[in-house]
Amino acid sequence: MYALGAHLLVELKDCNAEVLKDLGKVKETMVSAAKEAKATIIDVSFHEFNPFGISGMVVIAESHLSIHTWPEYAYAAVDIFTCGDVIKPEAAAQYLINQFESKNPSIVEMKRGIVSCSNEKLPHKVCAAELQLVS
Amino acid sequence: MYALGAHLLVELKDCNAEVLKDLGKVKETMVSAAKEAKATIIDVSFHEFNPFGISGMVVIAESHLSIHTWPEYAYAAVDIFTCGDVIKPEAAAQYLINQFESKNPSIVEMKRGIVSCSNEKLPHKVCAAELQLVS
Repeated sequence: MYALGAHLLVELKDCNAEVLKDLGKVKETMVSAAKEAKATIIDVSFHEFNPFGISGMVVIAESHLSIHTWPEYAYAAVDIFTCGDVIKPEAAAQYLINQFESKNPSIVEMKRGIVSCSNEKLPHKVCAAELQLVS
Repeated sequence: MYALGAHLLVELKDCNAEVLKDLGKVKETMVSAAKEAKATIIDVSFHEFNPFGISGMVVIAESHLSIHTWPEYAYAAVDIFTCGDVIKPEAAAQYLINQFESKNPSIVEMKRGIVSCSNEKLPHKVCAAELQLVS
Protein backbone atom coordinates (compact mmCIF):
# COMPACT_ATOMS: atom_id res chain seq x y z
CA MET A 1 0.00 0.00 0.00
CA TYR A 2 1.22 3.45 -0.86
CA ALA A 3 -0.19 6.70 0.56
CA LEU A 4 -0.24 10.01 -1.28
CA GLY A 5 0.05 12.03 1.92
CA ALA A 6 1.49 11.74 5.41
CA HIS A 7 -0.46 13.61 8.07
CA LEU A 8 0.96 14.22 11.53
CA LEU A 9 -1.60 15.21 14.17
CA VAL A 10 0.48 16.84 16.88
CA GLU A 11 -0.98 17.43 20.34
CA LEU A 12 1.13 19.95 22.23
CA LYS A 13 0.11 19.98 25.90
CA ASP A 14 1.72 21.76 28.85
CA CYS A 15 3.28 24.38 26.60
CA ASN A 16 4.59 27.83 27.50
CA ALA A 17 1.28 29.74 27.54
CA GLU A 18 2.98 33.10 27.00
CA VAL A 19 4.40 31.86 23.71
CA LEU A 20 1.02 30.46 22.60
CA LYS A 21 -0.61 33.89 22.94
CA ASP A 22 2.13 35.75 21.04
CA LEU A 23 0.96 36.14 17.43
CA GLY A 24 4.36 37.15 16.11
CA LYS A 25 6.15 34.32 17.90
CA VAL A 26 3.64 31.65 16.84
CA LYS A 27 3.77 32.80 13.22
CA GLU A 28 7.58 32.93 13.20
CA THR A 29 7.79 29.49 14.81
CA MET A 30 5.41 27.84 12.33
CA VAL A 31 7.22 29.35 9.34
CA SER A 32 10.52 28.15 10.77
CA ALA A 33 9.03 24.69 11.33
CA ALA A 34 8.09 24.51 7.64
CA LYS A 35 11.68 25.40 6.76
CA GLU A 36 12.95 22.75 9.19
CA ALA A 37 10.89 20.23 7.19
CA LYS A 38 12.52 21.47 3.95
CA ALA A 39 9.12 22.62 2.69
CA THR A 40 8.50 25.26 0.02
CA ILE A 41 6.38 28.00 1.60
CA ILE A 42 3.64 29.40 -0.65
CA ASP A 43 1.35 31.37 1.67
CA VAL A 44 1.00 32.25 5.35
CA SER A 45 -2.15 33.28 7.23
CA PHE A 46 -2.24 33.90 10.98
CA HIS A 47 -4.98 35.46 13.10
CA GLU A 48 -5.41 36.32 16.76
CA PHE A 49 -8.72 36.03 18.54
CA ASN A 50 -10.38 37.79 21.44
CA PRO A 51 -10.06 37.06 24.32
CA PHE A 52 -7.02 35.00 23.23
CA GLY A 53 -5.94 32.20 20.97
CA ILE A 54 -4.23 32.09 17.60
CA SER A 55 -5.06 30.22 14.41
CA GLY A 56 -2.51 29.94 11.65
CA MET A 57 -1.91 28.18 8.37
CA VAL A 58 1.29 27.75 6.39
CA VAL A 59 0.49 26.60 2.86
CA ILE A 60 3.44 24.72 1.39
CA ALA A 61 4.03 23.18 -2.03
CA GLU A 62 3.94 19.82 -0.25
CA SER A 63 0.54 20.52 1.42
CA HIS A 64 0.22 22.48 4.73
CA LEU A 65 0.96 23.13 8.36
CA SER A 66 -1.72 24.46 10.70
CA ILE A 67 -1.94 25.50 14.34
CA HIS A 68 -4.68 26.47 16.77
CA THR A 69 -3.66 27.59 20.25
CA TRP A 70 -5.57 27.65 23.54
CA PRO A 71 -3.20 29.57 25.84
CA GLU A 72 -5.58 29.18 28.79
CA TYR A 73 -5.01 25.43 28.54
CA ALA A 74 -1.32 25.74 27.59
CA TYR A 75 -2.38 23.66 24.57
CA ALA A 76 -1.84 23.83 20.82
CA ALA A 77 -3.20 21.56 18.10
CA VAL A 78 -0.81 21.28 15.17
CA ASP A 79 -1.28 19.48 11.86
CA ILE A 80 1.56 18.76 9.48
CA PHE A 81 0.22 17.40 6.19
CA THR A 82 2.91 16.57 3.65
CA CYS A 83 3.51 14.61 0.48
CA GLY A 84 6.69 13.59 -1.20
CA ASP A 85 9.82 11.80 -0.10
CA VAL A 86 12.08 14.80 0.37
CA ILE A 87 10.17 16.66 3.07
CA LYS A 88 10.77 15.84 6.72
CA PRO A 89 7.60 16.45 8.75
CA GLU A 90 9.05 14.83 11.89
CA ALA A 91 11.71 17.52 11.97
CA ALA A 92 9.00 20.19 11.96
CA ALA A 93 7.11 18.43 14.75
CA GLN A 94 10.18 18.15 16.97
CA TYR A 95 11.04 21.79 16.32
CA LEU A 96 7.54 22.86 17.42
CA ILE A 97 7.67 20.70 20.53
CA ASN A 98 10.90 22.42 21.50
CA GLN A 99 9.87 25.97 20.61
CA PHE A 100 6.52 25.82 22.41
CA GLU A 101 8.20 24.04 25.33
CA SER A 102 5.59 21.27 25.38
CA LYS A 103 6.15 19.03 28.39
CA ASN A 104 3.50 16.55 27.20
CA PRO A 105 3.53 16.19 23.42
CA SER A 106 2.03 13.38 21.37
CA ILE A 107 1.97 12.64 17.65
CA VAL A 108 -0.36 10.46 15.59
CA GLU A 109 0.48 9.78 11.95
CA MET A 110 -2.39 9.20 9.56
CA LYS A 111 -1.73 7.96 6.04
CA ARG A 112 -3.88 9.94 3.61
CA GLY A 113 -4.93 8.75 0.16
CA ILE A 114 -3.82 5.15 0.27
CA VAL A 115 -3.48 3.92 -3.32
CA SER A 116 -2.70 0.51 -4.71
CA CYS A 117 0.89 -0.43 -5.40
CA SER A 118 -0.31 -1.64 -8.79
CA ASN A 119 -0.90 1.95 -9.80
CA GLU A 120 2.22 2.88 -11.71
CA LYS A 121 1.58 6.59 -11.61
CA LEU A 122 3.43 8.56 -8.98
CA PRO A 123 1.67 11.30 -6.99
CA HIS A 124 1.89 14.53 -8.98
CA LYS A 125 3.45 16.39 -6.07
CA VAL A 126 6.20 13.81 -5.94
CA CYS A 127 6.82 13.14 -9.61
CA ALA A 128 6.85 16.83 -10.50
CA ALA A 129 10.61 17.29 -10.46
CA GLU A 130 10.19 20.98 -11.07
CA LEU A 131 7.10 21.90 -9.10
CA GLN A 132 5.67 25.14 -10.38
CA LEU A 133 2.96 27.30 -8.90
CA VAL A 134 0.69 28.29 -11.76
CA SER A 135 -1.74 30.43 -9.77
CA MET B 1 -13.64 13.95 28.93
CA TYR B 2 -14.15 17.12 26.94
CA ALA B 3 -12.26 17.99 23.75
CA LEU B 4 -11.47 21.53 22.65
CA GLY B 5 -11.62 20.64 18.99
CA ALA B 6 -13.36 18.19 16.66
CA HIS B 7 -11.32 17.18 13.64
CA LEU B 8 -12.87 15.36 10.69
CA LEU B 9 -10.38 13.66 8.36
CA VAL B 10 -12.34 13.19 5.16
CA GLU B 11 -11.07 10.84 2.46
CA LEU B 12 -12.82 11.56 -0.83
CA LYS B 13 -12.11 8.76 -3.31
CA ASP B 14 -13.60 8.12 -6.75
CA CYS B 15 -14.47 11.79 -7.21
CA ASN B 16 -15.21 13.72 -10.39
CA ALA B 17 -11.62 14.36 -11.54
CA GLU B 18 -12.64 17.31 -13.70
CA VAL B 19 -13.99 19.10 -10.63
CA LEU B 20 -10.84 18.34 -8.61
CA LYS B 21 -8.66 20.10 -11.18
CA ASP B 22 -10.84 23.22 -11.42
CA LEU B 23 -9.33 25.85 -9.12
CA GLY B 24 -12.39 28.10 -9.19
CA LYS B 25 -14.79 25.23 -8.54
CA VAL B 26 -12.73 23.75 -5.70
CA LYS B 27 -12.39 27.16 -4.03
CA GLU B 28 -16.09 27.93 -4.40
CA THR B 29 -17.04 24.50 -3.06
CA MET B 30 -14.81 24.75 0.02
CA VAL B 31 -16.08 28.23 0.87
CA SER B 32 -19.65 27.00 0.48
CA ALA B 33 -18.87 24.00 2.70
CA ALA B 34 -17.68 26.35 5.44
CA LYS B 35 -20.96 28.24 5.14
CA GLU B 36 -22.89 24.95 5.27
CA ALA B 37 -21.17 24.33 8.61
CA LYS B 38 -22.30 27.77 9.83
CA ALA B 39 -18.65 28.83 10.15
CA THR B 40 -17.36 32.40 10.14
CA ILE B 41 -14.90 32.72 7.25
CA ILE B 42 -11.79 34.78 8.01
CA ASP B 43 -9.36 34.03 5.18
CA VAL B 44 -9.15 31.92 2.03
CA SER B 45 -6.02 30.70 0.23
CA PHE B 46 -6.10 28.41 -2.79
CA HIS B 47 -3.30 27.43 -5.16
CA GLU B 48 -3.02 25.31 -8.28
CA PHE B 49 0.04 23.22 -9.05
CA ASN B 50 1.75 22.04 -12.17
CA PRO B 51 1.07 19.52 -13.69
CA PHE B 52 -2.18 19.46 -11.68
CA GLY B 53 -3.56 19.41 -8.19
CA ILE B 54 -5.01 22.06 -5.92
CA SER B 55 -4.28 22.95 -2.30
CA GLY B 56 -6.61 25.22 -0.39
CA MET B 57 -7.26 26.51 3.09
CA VAL B 58 -10.33 28.21 4.51
CA VAL B 59 -9.49 29.81 7.85
CA ILE B 60 -12.61 30.14 9.98
CA ALA B 61 -13.19 31.67 13.40
CA GLU B 62 -13.87 28.12 14.59
CA SER B 63 -10.53 26.76 13.19
CA HIS B 64 -10.12 25.67 9.54
CA LEU B 65 -11.00 23.61 6.50
CA SER B 66 -8.31 22.35 4.13
CA ILE B 67 -8.20 20.40 0.89
CA HIS B 68 -5.53 18.81 -1.28
CA THR B 69 -6.59 17.25 -4.57
CA TRP B 70 -4.96 14.58 -6.74
CA PRO B 71 -7.12 14.65 -9.90
CA GLU B 72 -5.10 11.83 -11.47
CA TYR B 73 -6.30 9.59 -8.64
CA ALA B 74 -9.81 11.15 -8.49
CA TYR B 75 -8.91 11.74 -4.83
CA ALA B 76 -9.10 14.64 -2.41
CA ALA B 77 -7.97 14.82 1.21
CA VAL B 78 -10.13 17.17 3.25
CA ASP B 79 -9.74 18.25 6.87
CA ILE B 80 -12.47 19.99 8.82
CA PHE B 81 -11.14 21.20 12.16
CA THR B 82 -13.73 22.96 14.31
CA CYS B 83 -14.43 24.02 17.86
CA GLY B 84 -17.63 25.13 19.50
CA ASP B 85 -21.09 23.70 19.78
CA VAL B 86 -22.80 25.79 17.12
CA ILE B 87 -20.80 24.75 14.08
CA LYS B 88 -21.84 21.69 12.08
CA PRO B 89 -18.75 20.05 10.50
CA GLU B 90 -20.71 16.98 9.38
CA ALA B 91 -22.84 19.21 7.17
CA ALA B 92 -19.70 20.53 5.49
CA ALA B 93 -18.38 16.99 4.97
CA GLN B 94 -21.62 15.77 3.40
CA TYR B 95 -21.75 18.84 1.16
CA LEU B 96 -18.21 18.14 -0.10
CA ILE B 97 -18.97 14.46 -0.71
CA ASN B 98 -21.90 15.53 -2.86
CA GLN B 99 -20.17 18.36 -4.71
CA PHE B 100 -17.05 16.37 -5.59
CA GLU B 101 -19.26 13.37 -6.45
CA SER B 102 -17.22 11.00 -4.31
CA LYS B 103 -18.40 7.43 -4.81
CA ASN B 104 -16.16 6.14 -2.03
CA PRO B 105 -15.96 8.63 0.88
CA SER B 106 -14.83 7.93 4.42
CA ILE B 107 -14.62 10.10 7.52
CA VAL B 108 -12.58 9.69 10.69
CA GLU B 109 -13.24 12.00 13.63
CA MET B 110 -10.35 12.81 15.93
CA LYS B 111 -10.93 14.62 19.20
CA ARG B 112 -8.26 17.29 19.64
CA GLY B 113 -7.22 18.79 22.96
CA ILE B 114 -8.98 16.51 25.39
CA VAL B 115 -9.31 18.34 28.70
CA SER B 116 -10.66 17.25 32.05
CA CYS B 117 -14.30 17.85 32.83
CA SER B 118 -13.13 19.21 36.18
CA ASN B 119 -11.77 22.25 34.38
CA GLU B 120 -14.53 24.83 34.76
CA LYS B 121 -13.20 27.12 32.06
CA LEU B 122 -14.81 26.80 28.67
CA PRO B 123 -12.65 26.87 25.52
CA HIS B 124 -12.12 30.50 24.56
CA LYS B 125 -13.48 29.96 21.08
CA VAL B 126 -16.65 28.62 22.60
CA CYS B 127 -17.10 30.89 25.59
CA ALA B 128 -16.40 34.03 23.56
CA ALA B 129 -19.99 35.01 22.92
CA GLU B 130 -18.88 37.84 20.70
CA LEU B 131 -15.86 36.46 18.92
CA GLN B 132 -13.76 39.29 17.60
CA LEU B 133 -10.82 39.16 15.25
CA VAL B 134 -8.17 41.45 16.68
CA SER B 135 -5.58 41.01 13.97
